[in-house]
Amino acid sequence: METVFLVTGVVGVFSIFWALLLALHIRKQDSGSERMKEISEYIHRGALAFLKSEYKYLSLFITAVFFILIFAVDLRSAFAFLVGAVFSILAGFLGMVVATKANVRTAEAARHSQNKALRIAFSGGAVMGLCVVGLGVIGIGFLLTIFSEDAIPLTGFALGASSIALFARVGGGIFTKAADVGADLVGKVEAHIPEDDPRNPAVIADNVGDNVGDVAGMGADLFESYVGSIISSVTLGYLVLEQYGAVFPLVLSSIGILASIIGIIIATKANGENPQKALNTGTYTAGLLVMVGTFILSKVVLDSYNAFFAVTAGLIIGILIGRITEVYTSADFRSVKTIALDSVTGSATNIISGLGVGMFSTMVPTVLIVLGVLLSYFVMGGNENATMGLYGISLAAVGMLSTTGITVAVDAYGPIADNAGGIAQMADLPPEVREITDKLDSVGNTTAAMGKGFAIGSAALTALSLFASYAESVELSSINLLNPLSLVGLFIGGMLPFLFAALTMNSVGKAANEMVMEVRRQFREIDGIMDGSGKPDYDRCVAISTKAALREMILPGILAVVIPVGVGLLLGAETLGGLIAGAVVTGVLLAIMMSNAGGAWDNAKKYIESGEHGGKGSEAHTAGIVGDTVGDPFKDTSGPSMNILIKLMSIVALVFAPVIVEYGGILLKLIVS
Amino acid sequence: METVFLVTGVVGVFSIFWALLLALHIRKQDSGSERMKEISEYIHRGALAFLKSEYKYLSLFITAVFFILIFAVDLRSAFAFLVGAVFSILAGFLGMVVATKANVRTAEAARHSQNKALRIAFSGGAVMGLCVVGLGVIGIGFLLTIFSEDAIPLTGFALGASSIALFARVGGGIFTKAADVGADLVGKVEAHIPEDDPRNPAVIADNVGDNVGDVAGMGADLFESYVGSIISSVTLGYLVLEQYGAVFPLVLSSIGILASIIGIIIATKANGENPQKALNTGTYTAGLLVMVGTFILSKVVLDSYNAFFAVTAGLIIGILIGRITEVYTSADFRSVKTIALDSVTGSATNIISGLGVGMFSTMVPTVLIVLGVLLSYFVMGGNENATMGLYGISLAAVGMLSTTGITVAVDAYGPIADNAGGIAQMADLPPEVREITDKLDSVGNTTAAMGKGFAIGSAALTALSLFASYAESVELSSINLLNPLSLVGLFIGGMLPFLFAALTMNSVGKAANEMVMEVRRQFREIDGIMDGSGKPDYDRCVAISTKAALREMILPGILAVVIPVGVGLLLGAETLGGLIAGAVVTGVLLAIMMSNAGGAWDNAKKYIESGEHGGKGSEAHTAGIVGDTVGDPFKDTSGPSMNILIKLMSIVALVFAPVIVEYGGILLKLIVS
Repeated sequence: METVFLVTGVVGVFSIFWALLLALHIRKQDSGSERMKEISEYIHRGALAFLKSEYKYLSLFITAVFFILIFAVDLRSAFAFLVGAVFSILAGFLGMVVATKANVRTAEAARHSQNKALRIAFSGGAVMGLCVVGLGVIGIGFLLTIFSEDAIPLTGFALGASSIALFARVGGGIFTKAADVGADLVGKVEAHIPEDDPRNPAVIADNVGDNVGDVAGMGADLFESYVGSIISSVTLGYLVLEQYGAVFPLVLSSIGILASIIGIIIATKANGENPQKALNTGTYTAGLLVMVGTFILSKVVLDSYNAFFAVTAGLIIGILIGRITEVYTSADFRSVKTIALDSVTGSATNIISGLGVGMFSTMVPTVLIVLGVLLSYFVMGGNENATMGLYGISLAAVGMLSTTGITVAVDAYGPIADNAGGIAQMADLPPEVREITDKLDSVGNTTAAMGKGFAIGSAALTALSLFASYAESVELSSINLLNPLSLVGLFIGGMLPFLFAALTMNSVGKAANEMVMEVRRQFREIDGIMDGSGKPDYDRCVAISTKAALREMILPGILAVVIPVGVGLLLGAETLGGLIAGAVVTGVLLAIMMSNAGGAWDNAKKYIESGEHGGKGSEAHTAGIVGDTVGDPFKDTSGPSMNILIKLMSIVALVFAPVIVEYGGILLKLIVS
Repeated sequence: METVFLVTGVVGVFSIFWALLLALHIRKQDSGSERMKEISEYIHRGALAFLKSEYKYLSLFITAVFFILIFAVDLRSAFAFLVGAVFSILAGFLGMVVATKANVRTAEAARHSQNKALRIAFSGGAVMGLCVVGLGVIGIGFLLTIFSEDAIPLTGFALGASSIALFARVGGGIFTKAADVGADLVGKVEAHIPEDDPRNPAVIADNVGDNVGDVAGMGADLFESYVGSIISSVTLGYLVLEQYGAVFPLVLSSIGILASIIGIIIATKANGENPQKALNTGTYTAGLLVMVGTFILSKVVLDSYNAFFAVTAGLIIGILIGRITEVYTSADFRSVKTIALDSVTGSATNIISGLGVGMFSTMVPTVLIVLGVLLSYFVMGGNENATMGLYGISLAAVGMLSTTGITVAVDAYGPIADNAGGIAQMADLPPEVREITDKLDSVGNTTAAMGKGFAIGSAALTALSLFASYAESVELSSINLLNPLSLVGLFIGGMLPFLFAALTMNSVGKAANEMVMEVRRQFREIDGIMDGSGKPDYDRCVAISTKAALREMILPGILAVVIPVGVGLLLGAETLGGLIAGAVVTGVLLAIMMSNAGGAWDNAKKYIESGEHGGKGSEAHTAGIVGDTVGDPFKDTSGPSMNILIKLMSIVALVFAPVIVEYGGILLKLIVS
C-alpha cells in the first residue's frame, strides 16, 4: 500500500515538475513592446491585488473552520482541511500567475505565427491543469500515509478544497461579471468606445476577471471535483474491497496524470493551423490512454473488467456531456440560430427563446448522467451489493475526472487567448495579429462551453459519490421518500439552488452597478481620459470588483454551510440526505440550464454580429445584446456556482456526519416526545 | 356509510342548484347597448368555437384512454375516468358560458354602480366555483355508491379530471398568450392603437383567451386538485381507519361547500366600495366556518382533535401561500419596486432582476409546504404509523381545498372584470365606467396572483398525497435514494418540468408568431380597417389560437402520460416513485418561480406606467414591457402547466399501478439476468 502512495506521490511531483518546466518556458518568451508589458503588468497586478484581498478573508475563514473542526470533529480532519485549503490556494495562485504571464506572450507570439501563439496559450493553461492534478494526488497520498491509511479524515481535505472553490468560483464569478457588465454598459453602450479599449477604466478589471473567474475559479472547481471523487472512491473502496478498493482509484489517477501529460505534449506539437483539432487530439489521446491503462489495471488489481467498464462509462459520458453542450451553444447548430431569428421580433422573444433553449438542454445531459449512474452501479454488481454499486458510481466519477490535467489545460487556454486578444487591441497591434488572437479566442469560447458542461457533469457525479459516502458514514440504510422527513429534505434541498442563483444574480447586479457608477465618475472627472492624455484609474475598478466579490459571497457561503448542518441537527441524518439529493438534482439542472442559455445567447449575439438578420446595429442586434447581458451572470456566475454549492453541501454533510449521528434530529425528538 | 354518500350528494346538488340560481340572476341583468351586445356575442361565440374544437379532440382522446383503461386496468376505472372527464368538461363549460354572459353585464352595471358591477362579476365567478365543487363531490359520492365503497377505481375519476385539466390549462394557456402577445405586438407596438381596440383583429381572441385560460383552465386545474385530494384521502382513509377514514374527508368537503356558499353570499352582500375587502371577508368567513365544522367533526368521527389540526394546517398554509405571492408580485412591496428601478438601466437588468425575484420567491412557499407536510404527518401520529401520517398529509390537502368553491369564485371574478373592461373600451363607454372596471380589474390581478399561489400549493399537496397513495398501491415500503434506481428516477423526474416549460414556452412563441402574421395580414388586406369602415375578421384569429393551442399541447400531453408509464415499465415501481418525487419538487419550484416572476414583471411595468422612473414612453417603460412580455408565458402558460404536469403524472402512476406491479422493471430484469 505504501508503494502505491509513493508512486502516486512521485507522479504528482512529476506533474508539478512538468508544470514548472512549462512555466519557465513561457517566462522565456518575448513579452513584446513596452506598451504591451505595461498593460500586462496592470492585469498581473490586478490579479495579485484580488488574490491578496481574498487571502485576507480566507485566512480568517480557514482559521475559524480549522478550530471548529478540531472541536466538532477531530484534529486529523482539521489538519486535512488545512492542507486541502492551502493546496487549492497554491494551485490557483500558480495557475493564475502563469496565465497572466502567458497572455502577453501569446499576443506577442501572434505577431509571428498562430502555431506559436496557440502553444504558449495552451502551455499557460497546462500549468494550471498540471498543478491541479499534481497537488491533488500529492495531498491525498501524503495524508493517507500520515493517517496510516485512515481515509475518513480525508474528507477534511475535500472540505478545504471546497471552501476555496467557493471563494474562487463564486467570488471570482461575481468579480468577472461585475467588471464585464460595468465595462460594457458604460464603455460600449454609453461612451461608444470598442471592447477592450484602454480608455475604459474597467477594462483591466475585465481582463483580470477572466483570470480570476475562468482560470482560478474553474481550476478550483475542478480541483474540488477531482479530490472529492478520489476521496469518496477511496473511502467506499476500503469498505468493499479493503486495500484493493483504495489502490484502484489512486493508481487510476496516476495513469490519468501521465496520460494528460502525454496529451498535453501531443496538443502542443500538433499543427496549430486548426487549433480546435490540436486540442481535441490531445484530449482524446489522453482519454484513450486512460482506457488502455484502466483495462490492464482493472484485471490486475481487481481481477475483472467491471471496474474498467465503470471508469470508461464515466470517461465517455464526461466527453459526451461536453460535446452536447456545443450543440446547444454553438452557432453551427439550430438552437443558437433560432434565438438569433427570434431576436428579430425584439428582446422579449430573444429572452423567451434563450430560456427555452436552456431548459430544453437539460434533457440529454440528464439522460447521460442517469445512464452513467445505472451502468457504473450495475456493472460493479450493485444489485447484489449496494455499496459495491456505489463504489462503481464513484469510479465513474474518478474516470470522468482522470484526465482533469488536460481538461483544465484546454479550459484555461480560453481566457488566456481572450486576454491576449484584449492586450493586442489595447496595444494597437496590427489587424492580422488580432485576427489570430480572435481565432484562438473563438476556439476558446467553444472549449469553455464544453468545459462548463464537463464541470457540471463531474460535479454531479462527484456530489453523488460524496452523497453515497455520507450515507455510509452516518450508517443510513435508506433515505426513504415515503418518510416525510426525507421528502421535506428533498423540498428544502431542491429550493436551495434557486435561492443561491437568486442571491448570486443579485450580487452581480449590485456589483455591476457600483462599477457603472465608478466608470461614469472617471469619464466625468478625469481630464483628457477620452483623447488618451488622461490616465484612467484601473486599480480603483479592480478594487471595486474585488470588494464586491468578497462581500457578496459571504451570505451564499454561509448558507451553503449552515443550512445542511442546521437541517441535520434539527431534523436528522435522513432529512439531510434528502436535502442533498434535492440540491444535487435541481442544482445540476439549473447549472445546465443557466450555462447553456448563457452560452447560446452569447453566440446568438455573435451570429447576428457576423451579419445575419441585419448585423451590427440592427434591431435584432440590440435584442441579442440584451440576451447576452442576461446570459453573462447565468453562465459565468450563477450557473457555475451550482457546481460548488452541491459539492460543498455534500462534503459539509460528510465531514459533520459524526456530529449529526450523535446530535442530529433534536427538533424531531422534541416533537415526537 | 350510504347516508354519508347521500348527504355528500345532496350538498353537491345544492351547490349546483345555487350556481344555477346565480346564473339565472346574471342572465336577467341588462346587457347594455347594441354595440356591447355585439362585442359580447363575439367573445361568447369565440369561446364556444374554441370549446367545440377542443371537444372534437377530447372525444377522440377520451375514447382512446377509455379503451386503454379497460384493457390495461379494469372497467370500473375506465368508467370512473369517463365520468371524471365529462364532469370536468361540464364544470368548465358551465363556468365559461356564464362568464361570457357576466362580462358584458358587469360592464353595463358599472354604468350604474361599482357595487352592482362587483356583484355580477363575482357571481359569475361563483357559478364556476360552485360547479367545480358540486360536480366534484357528486361524482365521487356517486362512484363510491355504485362501486360499493371500493375507492380504488376512483383514481380513474381523478385521471379523467386531470386529462381535461391538461387540455384546458395547458391548451388554454397557449391560446390566451398567443392571442395576447399577438394582439399586443402588432396592435400596440406596430400600429400604435390602444389595448382592447376593436380595430385589432386579435382583440376578441385576446378576450376569449381570458375566459379559456383563466376561467376554464384555472377551474379545471382546481377541479383536478379538489377531486384528487379527496380521492387520495378516501383511499388512504380506508386503509388506516376503515369507513371512518373515508367519511371524514367526504363530510369535510360537504362542510367546505356549505361554508363556501355562505362566504359567497357574504361577499356579494358586502360593501362593494372596497372590492378586495369584500372578497377577503367572504373567503376568511368560509375558512373560519370550515375550521369550526372540522373541530366538531374531528371529535365526533375520529374521537380526537388531531385531524382538525391537520386540516387547519392545510387551510392556513393555503391562505399564507396565496398572501406571500402578493409580497413578491404587488407594487406595494419591495420586489416589484426593485424590478422597476432596475428597468432604468435597460431590458437586461429588468430581466435579471425579475428572474432573481422569481427564484428568491421559492423560499417561503417551500418552507410553508414543508411545515404543512411535517405538521399534518406528525399530528396524526405518523411516527408510529406511517400510513396514518400520510393520511394526515392528504387531510391537509383536503383542508386547503375545502373552500375551493369560493376560491375559484374569487379567481374567476378577475377575468370577468378584465373582460368587462375590454368591452367598456371597445364599446366606447364613458371614462367613469372604465374607472370602475379598471378598479375591479386591478383587484382581479391581485386575486389572480394569490389564486396562482394557492393553485400551486394545493397542487403540491395533492400530488404528494397521490404520491403516497401510489406507494401504498404498488406496496412500496420504500423509495430509497441510496438505491440508484430511485435516484435515477429523481433525476429524470426533476428534469421533466424543465422540458415541459421549454416546450410550452416555445409553443407560445410559435403560436404568437402565427397570430402576428395574421393580424399584419388583416391590417394590410382589409380596406378601411383602421378608420372603422372595414370589419376585422375576429373569427379567423380565434381559429388560429384554437388550432395552435390544440396542436401544441399534443406533445407535452403525450410526454406527461407516456414517460411515467414507460419509466415504470422499464425500470420499475421504485424508479417511478423517484420520478414523481423529483417532478413534484422541481415542478413546484418552477411553477412558483415562473408565476411570481411573471406577476412581478407585470406589476413593475404597471408601476412604471403609473409615472415612476419616467412613466409611459420612458426607457424604463420599454424595459418594463420586455419583462412583461417574457412574463406572460411564464405566469399564464408554463408556470400553471406545472400544476397539471405534477398531478397528472402522479395520477397516471396511481392508475397504472397494477400494471406496473405486474410488468414493471422489464429493462432492469434484463440487465440483472
